[in-house]
Amino acid sequence: MKIAVLPGDGIGPEIVAQAVKVLNALGPKFDLETAPVGGAAYDISGHPLPPATLDLAKSADAILFGAVGDWKYDSLARELRPEQAILGLRKHLELFANLRPAICYDELTAASSLKPEIVGGLDILIIRELNGDIYFGQPRGIRTSELPLFKGAREGFDMMHYSEPEVERIGRVAFEAARLRSKKVCSVDKANVLETSQLWREVMIRVGKDYPDVELSHMYVDNAAMQLVKAPKAFDVVVTGNLFGDILSDEAAMLTGSIGMLPSASLDKNNKGLYEPSHGSAPDIAGKGVANPLATILSTAMMLRYSLGMPAEADRIEAAVQSVLTQGLRTADIHTAGSQMVSTIQMGDAVVAAL
Amino acid sequence: MKIAVLPGDGIGPEIVAQAVKVLNALGPKFDLETAPVGGAAYDISGHPLPPATLDLAKSADAILFGAVGDWKYDSLARELRPEQAILGLRKHLELFANLRPAICYDELTAASSLKPEIVGGLDILIIRELNGDIYFGQPRGIRTSELPLFKGAREGFDMMHYSEPEVERIGRVAFEAARLRSKKVCSVDKANVLETSQLWREVMIRVGKDYPDVELSHMYVDNAAMQLVKAPKAFDVVVTGNLFGDILSDEAAMLTGSIGMLPSASLDKNNKGLYEPSHGSAPDIAGKGVANPLATILSTAMMLRYSLGMPAEADRIEAAVQSVLTQGLRTADIHTAGSQMVSTIQMGDAVVAAL
Ligand SMILES: CC(C)[C@H](C(=O)O)[C@@H](O)C(=O)O
Ligand SMILES: CC(C)[C@H](C(=O)O)[C@@H](O)C(=O)O
Repeated sequence: MKIAVLPGDGIGPEIVAQAVKVLNALGPKFDLETAPVGGAAYDISGHPLPPATLDLAKSADAILFGAVGDWKYDSLARELRPEQAILGLRKHLELFANLRPAICYDELTAASSLKPEIVGGLDILIIRELNGDIYFGQPRGIRTSELPLFKGAREGFDMMHYSEPEVERIGRVAFEAARLRSKKVCSVDKANVLETSQLWREVMIRVGKDYPDVELSHMYVDNAAMQLVKAPKAFDVVVTGNLFGDILSDEAAMLTGSIGMLPSASLDKNNKGLYEPSHGSAPDIAGKGVANPLATILSTAMMLRYSLGMPAEADRIEAAVQSVLTQGLRTADIHTAGSQMVSTIQMGDAVVAAL
Repeated sequence: MKIAVLPGDGIGPEIVAQAVKVLNALGPKFDLETAPVGGAAYDISGHPLPPATLDLAKSADAILFGAVGDWKYDSLARELRPEQAILGLRKHLELFANLRPAICYDELTAASSLKPEIVGGLDILIIRELNGDIYFGQPRGIRTSELPLFKGAREGFDMMHYSEPEVERIGRVAFEAARLRSKKVCSVDKANVLETSQLWREVMIRVGKDYPDVELSHMYVDNAAMQLVKAPKAFDVVVTGNLFGDILSDEAAMLTGSIGMLPSASLDKNNKGLYEPSHGSAPDIAGKGVANPLATILSTAMMLRYSLGMPAEADRIEAAVQSVLTQGLRTADIHTAGSQMVSTIQMGDAVVAAL
């Protein structure tokens, strides 16, 4: 079983090291191959996603990804910036299905900015389409406007679009996921304004007919942004496009107050996937040994479950993480009075010990 | 001073009636002319924004708008649906600047799903561009795909775009507004992915040079959706495009827990404006006499201040609203143990009495 390990920038290397430690402690031997990505790759080779890294990712059974990005690359041309690495991996490997759980652990409910009765026990799954939408739509660019009102002025433009098969395949992922949960899918769009959303909604309704046991509802994205704040537990599986999913999955993650705990999976149609924490590269705390490795460790659990067919090992990791929380161990981001503050490495060691 | 009164659908007529009562009680004589809009207009004339309504709105000095929309119009073709009325008014009247305050009243802090220390005293202003972006971009539609991967499949598409003058004019509104507040503007975009946002950011930076006394920062929309949940009081003026503004302004409104209190203004370049509550038409409670009229009443205060040059009268209305809250009067949406529940009409009467 070959796993491509792409630590990336900022806290990426530190947190990925802990996840690797946990994988190695499981028992089964994994073939782990590391390659640079993001700013780290740019520094070495002049490109955030060098061909060797992409090749490794293609040939692996799964990818463990840390995080990319650092202010020091802010002045680079867009195509050389660290974020292009993650966009490139998603596109080249056709990782179209992004699964982002937003879970509020009982032990960490107090870390949320929301009241405990609103978020306590929260467990929702945001499914974001990752290969289409305005992220990759053509045409796009900056040009001179031909519009009568703004003739001669520069204008930026980007095409949003979704085709039927793209919506259908992400819809099926959502309905299948809902079958394993509470059988409710909420599809989020902006069908009162966008034609893309109109097609999206139509296809969701059609695909939903194949899943009569799953309840399908629809919500406009502005309303979804509100309802997530008001009553997040009313949701179960939420499925949406790339752009709305970018916004709503981050909003949902922050509701828990412990984004340092949230893993994510980005899957292709054969369940090969890239696994990464939901948080970013946090360059402000990089190298200080204080970052929370649990989101990355939980991402390896998702990897074992979805891509490597090892659900028992996934359960073991999740149980070990639950156990360190119960023991009261906390990295700085989730630390509160009464709990024991630990470093990145200590947290990794504690999870290994709890396995 | 001519005011076009467009009550619309659902609770629109009830809440607008209270706002009209307050306007009439102020003293100065306003020439109020009422016309149907949204579903109510469709029922009478077959169109959500009939020419007579549009003409009235054009000829008025300001527009008092209730709300539009009802499930019973869901099966109509998009161009006949109630929402088209508000989109049409924004476009035809060039109402490009949407001001949406998100204020958490001390008396209502408990109504929020967020902890009191996170939202107590919240007072931010979201400025949303309202005439451009993917809302009105061309081309748009549903067609047969020419993309190799999806050839022959149907696809929906919508063009996002912004030209320099469009960004500049909304930027100036934001910087001017910040000068009257705490001199901080946060511009929200997705410049790491969208070319439209890249131009947006470039123009904001250029325009910002004319306001050296105002601090300009930039934030990606996904991060903004998170930071609004985590620490909303860190914001002051937020300026963003039509689509991101739709999502973020609703999220920000819901943080307060009392969206029934939040007014909005949509202004053209001469400060002629349309004023409406931030909430919708709530068809589920229409006609029951329980809707909260305060957002609409506070919208008339914004109208007096921005479009009619009557700031003293605006202050009087705002003070009267504050006074009914202090008295403990609450409509059902903001009612809590210990406060006195009142009807829509009773609330309107109480504001008139407090003037
Ligand atoms: C870094 C950026 C391009 C990326 C995105 O917008 O998809 C990130 O926000 C994410 O959600 O993974
Ligand atoms: C009704 C709808 C078209 C509208 C919008 O998306 O602008 C509404 O959500 C709003 O924010 O006023």
